[in-house]
Amino acid sequence: MKQFEEKTIHREEIFRGNLISLHVDDVELPNGMRSKREVVKHPGAVAVIPLTDEGKLVMVKQFRKPLERTLVEIPAGKIEKGEEPHVTALRELEEETGYTTKNLKYVTSFYTSPGFADEIIHLYFSNELVKLEEKVSGDEDELIEIVELTLEEAEQYVKEQKIHDAKTAYAVLYVKMLLGRG
Amino acid sequence: MKQFEEKTIHREEIFRGNLISLHVDDVELPNGMRSKREVVKHPGAVAVIPLTDEGKLVMVKQFRKPLERTLVEIPAGKIEKGEEPHVTALRELEEETGYTTKNLKYVTSFYTSPGFADEIIHLYFSNELVKLEEKVSGDEDELIEIVELTLEEAEQYVKEQKIHDAKTAYAVLYVKMLLGRG
Repeated sequence: MKQFEEKTIHREEIFRGNLISLHVDDVELPNGMRSKREVVKHPGAVAVIPLTDEGKLVMVKQFRKPLERTLVEIPAGKIEKGEEPHVTALRELEEETGYTTKNLKYVTSFYTSPGFADEIIHLYFSNELVKLEEKVSGDEDELIEIVELTLEEAEQYVKEQKIHDAKTAYAVLYVKMLLGRG
Repeated sequence: MKQFEEKTIHREEIFRGNLISLHVDDVELPNGMRSKREVVKHPGAVAVIPLTDEGKLVMVKQFRKPLERTLVEIPAGKIEKGEEPHVTALRELEEETGYTTKNLKYVTSFYTSPGFADEIIHLYFSNELVKLEEKVSGDEDELIEIVELTLEEAEQYVKEQKIHDAKTAYAVLYVKMLLGRG
């Protein structure tokens, strides 16, 4: 769909961090007009919807600095260099929840903020969870707490805005549909 | 939930743009450990799920510079300073699709990328659309094309990754549930 393409005239590199980088592009639109685009680059991430035999969603509670508050989210994490998304997904499930699985089903992928960032999240689902005998340790600077919620509790958390992010909102809707309570 | 709070020790302002700004925080974790957090600030946005009397989803096709490709998304836009989200929602619906409505229902809100950004999207729904007699013009530097899709077509677009962003993935799932085709 070439007719919409915005041609980069000039790129200014602003920042290169541990997680993200930022550049500003001067672009030329197909109608000849010029504009600026502020672009955040991100390595991509995975998330897992873990549903226990008891029909509970396994979530993690953690502090999110950009929001200056604690959120309850499905387990997720960024893809390390060269890592296949399903490998990241299983690793994050084990590290963050203490469960593992032999059946991780791919659900979908989505860009989270196409207006200013290229972050993509690959979403997986498992309802064949097995409790790990030994804890697998994750990121040292990531303090988390596990919360297991029924669908009703998860919906209450959405109302109270304790659950408040796109991937987890999608997860709650997905499980609602799965359990035929739409 | 103070036990998770990450205290800012030092903040470095990196960038202040037209859409986003960026800073890096040195933080102290509750366990005494120190780390860095890269944070993007965004003014917030709205999105609308417009469903026609014929059961079609009204979407917009546009080029997304961060992805260097064209996506099909539900109409959306950033909240202007001092604007109420539902006002932004109606404005974006009118500007981007040529439809208006007297019944815009609030669905939910979600943070899109709580790991590195504070962007929040307020999501609305309307199935009482009225075609505007005259076109309302929107952002000059935003070239878009309207696409009306049945749920089946929308799901096909998801498979082909023409629909590929969080708010639109949520919208497709939402309409699927609404139409009882989960």
